[in-house]
Amino acid sequence: MASLVTGSSGFIGLNVVEALLARGDEVVGFSDTPLPLRALQEFARLPGKLRVVEGDVTEPGQIDAAMALHRIDRVIHGAAITAGLERDASDPQRIAAVNLGGTLNVLAAARKHNIKRFVHVGTGAAYGSAGLLDGGLLDEEAHTPRPVSMYGITKYAAEGSCLRLGELWNIEAVVGRLAMVYGCWEYETGLRDQMSLPLQALRVAARGAEAVAPSGGELRDWIYAPDVASALVMLLDAKSLAHTVYNIGTGAPFTLADWCEKLRAAFPGFRYRLSDNAAEWNVIPLAAAGRSPFAAQRIRTDLGFRPEFLLDRAFDHYVAWWRAHPD
Amino acid sequence: MASLVTGSSGFIGLNVVEALLARGDEVVGFSDTPLPLRALQEFARLPGKLRVVEGDVTEPGQIDAAMALHRIDRVIHGAAITAGLERDASDPQRIAAVNLGGTLNVLAAARKHNIKRFVHVGTGAAYGSAGLLDGGLLDEEAHTPRPVSMYGITKYAAEGSCLRLGELWNIEAVVGRLAMVYGCWEYETGLRDQMSLPLQALRVAARGAEAVAPSGGELRDWIYAPDVASALVMLLDAKSLAHTVYNIGTGAPFTLADWCEKLRAAFPGFRYRLSDNAAEWNVIPLAAAGRSPFAAQRIRTDLGFRPEFLLDRAFDHYVAWWRAHPD
Repeated sequence: MASLVTGSSGFIGLNVVEALLARGDEVVGFSDTPLPLRALQEFARLPGKLRVVEGDVTEPGQIDAAMALHRIDRVIHGAAITAGLERDASDPQRIAAVNLGGTLNVLAAARKHNIKRFVHVGTGAAYGSAGLLDGGLLDEEAHTPRPVSMYGITKYAAEGSCLRLGELWNIEAVVGRLAMVYGCWEYETGLRDQMSLPLQALRVAARGAEAVAPSGGELRDWIYAPDVASALVMLLDAKSLAHTVYNIGTGAPFTLADWCEKLRAAFPGFRYRLSDNAAEWNVIPLAAAGRSPFAAQRIRTDLGFRPEFLLDRAFDHYVAWWRAHPD
Repeated sequence: MASLVTGSSGFIGLNVVEALLARGDEVVGFSDTPLPLRALQEFARLPGKLRVVEGDVTEPGQIDAAMALHRIDRVIHGAAITAGLERDASDPQRIAAVNLGGTLNVLAAARKHNIKRFVHVGTGAAYGSAGLLDGGLLDEEAHTPRPVSMYGITKYAAEGSCLRLGELWNIEAVVGRLAMVYGCWEYETGLRDQMSLPLQALRVAARGAEAVAPSGGELRDWIYAPDVASALVMLLDAKSLAHTVYNIGTGAPFTLADWCEKLRAAFPGFRYRLSDNAAEWNVIPLAAAGRSPFAAQRIRTDLGFRPEFLLDRAFDHYVAWWRAHPD
């Protein structure tokens, strides 16, 4: 039996596919763009078997055909447009069509093909204006989402649809709400409107230039992409699930300054400063408001998930990975 | 200048169109089904002028064409599928396409045609599992929606989209979240999956039969449709609005037994009883869980809205209206 990963050429998708192949799984990747060549080459050396189907989640027939190709029993649904402000204003219909309509299509195909477990890749952006606490951690139960952006709105609607239709259609649907992800395989796909702050700063560091970022210095819940993949795979594997929504965060937040200090030690010539003058910034957060760190208890208690890559280890791993992937 | 009403042949739409015509407004109605013949006849005797455009909100070109027909400066967007459980399971894509996609299309047309005020007809179903309080009233601020059904999910996403895109596109968008509406012009449109309890009971009463309803006897916030229309028109007219979301409820809830007592006095032979046995029910609520009454403060304070038809007056008015509209 194979697992289907939608959005398999995207940031999260590539990490999930790699994790599944690394342990020898059969994987069907579904994406509207080809996987990066480098990923295909590296994944070919892994023990698992990957088959990629090019298609668009907004086309019900295409996702249905992908599920018909192999015997698939599990889905990780990551296909989404990670929209920023400009895309909200310029093409909200497409954001809704992909993030909600696409999810409904994948769910309908999952129903038809008797998929048992459906892992929905959700987002902390769903918390929206409920997401910036005055101290404390964002909890799945205590903090009800109040999404604001089209990304948050449509992804939250997709979450709800997974749980509603999962119940009506007898699919075990579960939502993993991701904190702020950075790390391997983050690149411009055309569907992710802004790179993570750690990557933005890393790029400045690699040029030996100066990073200028918004002042504030809040602790943020950046989670390393391979850890996100591990958590999502745990949701995929779990024999039973006590909850339907899980935060996927580290419980060990750090500040942008923490990250930049690491960069300063590793990249000669790199400097950084924080500024209140937006015109100066060359390292720019996607959401103006930011987001409080996640409570990480639930997935730890239910599934034993603990991130393997906290700041120091993630930094070393990522810089090595990044140097080995100059394209 | 005219007002455009989407969903103009639906339950809420007909009441809004009637209210606008009654005071002499120009109205463009937009709907995928024709207005009931009786409504057309009655509306023709009102001082305002109505033009009806047949079209589907899921077709961007059709709503755009409707706005191009007249000089329109204001929109009340009511077009929606009021889905029940069965439609959630059978056609969630269409629910999303109409309730969210349709809203995005109407917003995009509103932007193009420089609409100033956009009144979104929202629903208490958005509150979802947050909607049944252990005492107390559902407040716009204190109670964050947790929609559960596809109707609640997609309508809540549509609300959020109105506010987000209203801000980005410089449209004054405002949401009126309706309590449980009953009254004039409620009929089977094919898009409203279940009639209100007051109408269900009225139909049983008119047959002189026995109504059997779920026991419980909770106070529910049934609001008379002409009052809803008044509130929505106030949102349309208001020079400025202090808030973006308004509950539209009565502040004077009653129980189904209260309603049935009124029916018993007016319809000889009518009886009713409450039962725990679902198989017996012939008066069936749409949502299993019900919903607490709304706090009605905000729209009262900001706009001076008070319902004109509380139980006694609404009952007399509705029964007279209903007898005069046997079809």
